[in-house]
Amino acid sequence: MKEVSGNPEIIIPGFKFAGIPAGIKRSGERDLALIFSESPAVTAALFTTNKIKAAPVKLSIERLATHKKCQSIIINSGNANACTGSPGLKNAREMIIKTAEELGIAPELVCVSSTGKIGTPLPMGKIKKALPVLVKKLSPLSLNHAASAILTTDTVTKLSSKKVKIGRKTGIIAGIAKGSGMIRPGMATMLSFIVTDISINRTALYSALREAVNRSFNRITVDNEMSTNDTVMMMANGNLKNIPVTMSAAVYNKFKGALNDVTYDLAGMIAEDGEGATKLIEIIVRGAKTESDAGKVASSVANSMLVKTAIYGQDPNWGRIMAAAGYSGAAVDERKIDIYINKIKLASKGTGTSKESVARKTLANKKILITIDLGIGKKTTGVLTCDLTEEYIKINAHYGT
Amino acid sequence: MKEVSGNPEIIIPGFKFAGIPAGIKRSGERDLALIFSESPAVTAALFTTNKIKAAPVKLSIERLATHKKCQSIIINSGNANACTGSPGLKNAREMIIKTAEELGIAPELVCVSSTGKIGTPLPMGKIKKALPVLVKKLSPLSLNHAASAILTTDTVTKLSSKKVKIGRKTGIIAGIAKGSGMIRPGMATMLSFIVTDISINRTALYSALREAVNRSFNRITVDNEMSTNDTVMMMANGNLKNIPVTMSAAVYNKFKGALNDVTYDLAGMIAEDGEGATKLIEIIVRGAKTESDAGKVASSVANSMLVKTAIYGQDPNWGRIMAAAGYSGAAVDERKIDIYINKIKLASKGTGTSKESVARKTLANKKILITIDLGIGKKTTGVLTCDLTEEYIKINAHYGT
Repeated sequence: MKEVSGNPEIIIPGFKFAGIPAGIKRSGERDLALIFSESPAVTAALFTTNKIKAAPVKLSIERLATHKKCQSIIINSGNANACTGSPGLKNAREMIIKTAEELGIAPELVCVSSTGKIGTPLPMGKIKKALPVLVKKLSPLSLNHAASAILTTDTVTKLSSKKVKIGRKTGIIAGIAKGSGMIRPGMATMLSFIVTDISINRTALYSALREAVNRSFNRITVDNEMSTNDTVMMMANGNLKNIPVTMSAAVYNKFKGALNDVTYDLAGMIAEDGEGATKLIEIIVRGAKTESDAGKVASSVANSMLVKTAIYGQDPNWGRIMAAAGYSGAAVDERKIDIYINKIKLASKGTGTSKESVARKTLANKKILITIDLGIGKKTTGVLTCDLTEEYIKINAHYGT
Repeated sequence: MKEVSGNPEIIIPGFKFAGIPAGIKRSGERDLALIFSESPAVTAALFTTNKIKAAPVKLSIERLATHKKCQSIIINSGNANACTGSPGLKNAREMIIKTAEELGIAPELVCVSSTGKIGTPLPMGKIKKALPVLVKKLSPLSLNHAASAILTTDTVTKLSSKKVKIGRKTGIIAGIAKGSGMIRPGMATMLSFIVTDISINRTALYSALREAVNRSFNRITVDNEMSTNDTVMMMANGNLKNIPVTMSAAVYNKFKGALNDVTYDLAGMIAEDGEGATKLIEIIVRGAKTESDAGKVASSVANSMLVKTAIYGQDPNWGRIMAAAGYSGAAVDERKIDIYINKIKLASKGTGTSKESVARKTLANKKILITIDLGIGKKTTGVLTCDLTEEYIKINAHYGT
């Protein structure tokens, strides 16, 4: 289902995309992206729960509260436009107005999003100069360009799409995302933009998006850091001309299933491409008394620097997993806990099974599965994360400079 | 006040110490320590709040609940004796019994403590063989040997002492500690053993110890990991023959002051010697609405991998401090927050002051002060932590092997 970067075959009828280098990033890479629907699209969005929100997040929240449709999203990387005070808000507003002007649409139909370093003013001169070029580059075939222009320290473009049969018609849901650092669960932990040509009412779109985010982006963690800019936005332009999907429609579950696939796919790509990561780690907790307890253990283990470094070092150190379960705050009974790494049982009823050498070999894999059976209930949950390496430190020790 | 490793001048009347290599650590370093009081000592202790507790922690909790005095503590490093089931409990019990036999005292008067890798059986043969040698080495001048024998990945011996005038007499409080990894606030986050010749009743000793731990060991974090073995234990043998200190005695505050100095000193040494650390970071939060809010912001910033890597990289990236304050869960108002690094104001009322280049120079220092003024109240708190470096990863990726 993953789409390779540069694949020109994904077309979402009625949508155009562009992504170009505007000189915001010193590297000269793409840093300005545009998503455009030929007609105003029903739009749903979820934003960071960080109490300190970037200017574009504040504006987009305001805009979507008063206008139910959106026709275009302008996104820059390389600068978060966060903690930039009222000049920051003015700049975000100007990005909207200038984009609307170039597109010839009302500014109320444009949303804005930013990602990158916090606390530095946006280089508005460069952005304004690049906007006409960006609009000229709009093409139905350029989703991959937009996907690459929203990246920061990501090493790969994240793009996923899924077809959905709606009666006799076939619609498509396609999404792009950027992650890499400042990734933790707690509502939309990165940027992701999803578009579909399927007609759907706003209530159903919001409900489906919320569920999809809870099952995907809210289950990944890289470094337990929550950004000021996290945004997941979805536009449905109805180009397919199907009977609008509602929550009571039979096809609603199908729609949700496809959307879940796209967001879960993107979430996996984010965890796998965590800053400096060499391994994708899936943590499954089962046998918990409550769902909340399962979640506490999963997130405690997923955020444990000692567990993440052990996996990096291919060291089946299950004792660190036990310790993290113990301090998670969840109800646990040491004498009931089984721990598996890649399905090899390393701890049974709280004590070691001496299977370390077998497990060690499987830790050479790129995908690692940690299963923790608490043995005291029936609730289950899962979290995706990555290992913690010297490279994470290198990337983040010098990001601001 | 810091005592240099190897300083033979600290004598705590009535106490003897020893620390030798017993072969538990592969490195051949000291790994077995003994603390012995000539007479049974009033003893107070605080233990990890991790729900998964090591066998020696379980035994010591049980022992101190039924016996108010303790005469000796046997401690090993190199193996945590945690997640070792009933054989682990049997081994911990045997350590106590054999130590008591060698010392010629009742086993009820011996406590046990372990630190090191979780989930591996103790090498009891080596320990039993070393015990007679250990007891023979007991000396009033060997506190530094005991201090070195409790270390794991620590790079320096942690030892602090303080004299206290009690009427015309002068008593002494001396403590040793080990930290380095698995360090987070939440009750006694490492091993520390404190001894004094001052006579004090048990209620007063517990109360003073609890307060001292809250002001010191509960305010340090290295990696937000809570161990299964954390223990702070304090013995008061009354050798000074002063009128026993009680909570209502005038001298009680003096006693607490000296104990606070010793524990704060040890806590600073632990933070400074965090695994792979190059810098000690003190985080002061002021202007918070509540003490709990101040604590949330301080611990959120102190545990932020992005803040810790930025300080390591000497990058005055105050935006990461803002983001961590924002997701801390505390009441914050972006427009009221001031942020200082080494007293240089980098953010004023939520936006940058462009003083990065001045601040960058001061980040070459070994001690870094981050001050966050939330500007919405009067509550203040402080936390000690360290930077996060490639070395932390290296140490922990291969610790188990």
